[in-house]
Amino acid sequence: MDMQMNKERVLELLHAHQYKKLKEELEEQMHPVDLAEMLEELEPLERVLIFRLLAKEEAAETFTNMNSDMREELINALTEQELEEVMEEMYIDDTVDVLEEMPANVVDRLLLSIDAEKRAQINTLLQYPEDSAGSIMTVDYIALRKEMTVQEAILKIRQVGLNKETIYTCYVTEKRRLIGQVDLKEILTTSESRLIEDVMDTNLIFAQTTDDKEDAARIINKYGLIALPILDHEMCMVGLVTVDDAMQVIQEETTEDISIMAGLSPNEDSYFGTTVFEHVKNRLPWLLFLMLSATVTQMIMGHYEMALAVMPQLAGFIPMLMGTGGNCGSQSSTLVIRGLAVGEIQLNDVLKVMFKEVRVALIISLILSVVNGVRILLMGQGGALTALAIGLTMACTIVIAKIVGCTLPLFAKRVGLDPAIMATPLISTLVDISTVTVYFAIVTAIFHI
Amino acid sequence: MDMQMNKERVLELLHAHQYKKLKEELEEQMHPVDLAEMLEELEPLERVLIFRLLAKEEAAETFTNMNSDMREELINALTEQELEEVMEEMYIDDTVDVLEEMPANVVDRLLLSIDAEKRAQINTLLQYPEDSAGSIMTVDYIALRKEMTVQEAILKIRQVGLNKETIYTCYVTEKRRLIGQVDLKEILTTSESRLIEDVMDTNLIFAQTTDDKEDAARIINKYGLIALPILDHEMCMVGLVTVDDAMQVIQEETTEDISIMAGLSPNEDSYFGTTVFEHVKNRLPWLLFLMLSATVTQMIMGHYEMALAVMPQLAGFIPMLMGTGGNCGSQSSTLVIRGLAVGEIQLNDVLKVMFKEVRVALIISLILSVVNGVRILLMGQGGALTALAIGLTMACTIVIAKIVGCTLPLFAKRVGLDPAIMATPLISTLVDISTVTVYFAIVTAIFHI
Repeated sequence: MDMQMNKERVLELLHAHQYKKLKEELEEQMHPVDLAEMLEELEPLERVLIFRLLAKEEAAETFTNMNSDMREELINALTEQELEEVMEEMYIDDTVDVLEEMPANVVDRLLLSIDAEKRAQINTLLQYPEDSAGSIMTVDYIALRKEMTVQEAILKIRQVGLNKETIYTCYVTEKRRLIGQVDLKEILTTSESRLIEDVMDTNLIFAQTTDDKEDAARIINKYGLIALPILDHEMCMVGLVTVDDAMQVIQEETTEDISIMAGLSPNEDSYFGTTVFEHVKNRLPWLLFLMLSATVTQMIMGHYEMALAVMPQLAGFIPMLMGTGGNCGSQSSTLVIRGLAVGEIQLNDVLKVMFKEVRVALIISLILSVVNGVRILLMGQGGALTALAIGLTMACTIVIAKIVGCTLPLFAKRVGLDPAIMATPLISTLVDISTVTVYFAIVTAIFHI
Repeated sequence: MDMQMNKERVLELLHAHQYKKLKEELEEQMHPVDLAEMLEELEPLERVLIFRLLAKEEAAETFTNMNSDMREELINALTEQELEEVMEEMYIDDTVDVLEEMPANVVDRLLLSIDAEKRAQINTLLQYPEDSAGSIMTVDYIALRKEMTVQEAILKIRQVGLNKETIYTCYVTEKRRLIGQVDLKEILTTSESRLIEDVMDTNLIFAQTTDDKEDAARIINKYGLIALPILDHEMCMVGLVTVDDAMQVIQEETTEDISIMAGLSPNEDSYFGTTVFEHVKNRLPWLLFLMLSATVTQMIMGHYEMALAVMPQLAGFIPMLMGTGGNCGSQSSTLVIRGLAVGEIQLNDVLKVMFKEVRVALIISLILSVVNGVRILLMGQGGALTALAIGLTMACTIVIAKIVGCTLPLFAKRVGLDPAIMATPLISTLVDISTVTVYFAIVTAIFHI
């Protein structure tokens, strides 16, 4: 890991025109993932010069790992021939990823540099919906027949394996229908004369082309698979999703969830890859919506202006009550949102979740109300009546916050929305409204104001 | 996926004493992951009965996928002989995971049922720090020598592969030092007479036993690996971490981050697997701390009781100002925390991050202040002076919130804390304090109260 070339060394060799040495060192010392990362920091012209030095496999892998701006720039700089060489080396699923991000004229140019058979496969893949398992699958897999012996299977794998993204799980098909699968490890460690039929596993785990790609990724994660076969609606095998793509999907979806939970529009680019203007655009909608929603709190408080004029010290408790309520609500909503995301909580668990949250809320509200009451008395912020009023408000707020926090994500999921939108920002605003309502109802009753 | 047995079918066969049929159906139709999940829902006695029916490989895999309570219960129910059979089938890294969760007397019993060689390996693994790469690695890997031909390598893999968790990447060692690695795909698709030396990749990606397990998992994710070799401090190869374990680690660490970001103590059990009392214990510390911190806000407001008595309508703006500030701050802190977690943002990016956030904050504060000013005038909540005072406060709050939100996670990382603690709850409380301070400074100056 520490034998990588640094940017300075690369630029030094480049500017000294020591291309041969640069090419050698790049190939020996740089992983395509790191090279793609480094190229991001260079000037466009330097990028193209370095890219041209790479051997075609290395070039294809580096290209796959670049961000879309860099790819587009390179495509425009390369000749037809160079482009053709790079595209030839890329796996089909990576090619499709690249094409999906490019403007139409670039796509046309790229498709021209791909041979006819591959082009037909790519066109099929491009038709799957954007977030489907079909859109991230590769069509390169090893298909075996059940009548083959292990020896024949090994021979086939050795012949065709080179162009397949993964050969570690082989699929047994009959008229294109998936009937079994067998790990390469199983094939290699059993007797050569056995039939594939006898070593294959028929208890199949698979997904369908139109399933959500996140669901496919979660299956790979749950069962610890290296690849998941993808079937069409006639149960014919059309491709597979590999574990590295699944990890990518899960990471992207998690980042998306975390963003939405913080009131941000999700964004596929990196933090620094997003311009200031785009950052503003991603953040503004929720901020505006929540700011305007807070008007409701303000209107409720407006009704009690007289009470506040009489006892202005009442205002001082509001931030603490709202803060505690908001925190309680966001704890509950976060647990439910994450539980739904990793599959620990199901839609029909709503009553179980509520029962748990209500008990938790009662214990917590008792403890916090007492601690806070003691604090009020000790700090001389009010007498027993004030402590009672604040304690009652706090207890009600916590129970309401926990119930709202745990039910809204489940409700969102039920009506087909992303549960993550029911997170801290929205929950806080709703809890703020209920807090002031409860607070003023209680204090006006207790203090007769 | 839809051919699984359901719980009713399992119980039906069990209670009809149709053990042979049950055993067959379980082995044909249930994946150990799903079986472990289903067993959770059964009675202890039913669990043991069903577990005893399983073939030993199936039993070992099911055992590996159970939660720790179920494992302990089973260990107490099984005979020495049964236990020995299960432990024999388990991979060493899974055995270590099991042992780490068990009470000392159970560990002793388990170690007794393991043969001496395996026990020595387990004892070594148990000594690695809990969150280290060493603690999650397996010591079963295929080691080749560089003088071997491809043919010899294939022969060796076929002989020893059965007991190795992964055979898909082979490691070339010399006096135990790692000098190269070669994918099984490479070995199978090249000429049998070539030397391993000529096909191996010497540009190694590895981690060390004492590295954080999350860092090892991120490397696997970044480079799309199936396994990552783990070296000791003499650079000798001691084991490897596989991609399925890496996915598990990333999922656990992400759940932990999300929990901490919502003011929850992280917890390895599932939502329903956590008792009400434990839920309270996980949620209370932050709630108490934040509630008491809110006292500062209250004390500041206490200083301005006269101003509030004169203009009680001023109180109504506070929830909106605090809410907007809190949301702005949590957007920034969330982006930075996630950026740090996935490696997009580095510690030394602090100035770059601040420069971006300040520009974003200025644009957002301008837009929100104007929109809110117009709203105040339209709704008749105040005149131009009020709109100006609120607008100024909002602008200051947003800039402060964004700066606090983006710098605190970086600061936490710098001093060795988890950046995730600098998320919404804490940021909101800090922003609340700065909001009231700025607000009352501005309104008392503008309205001369």
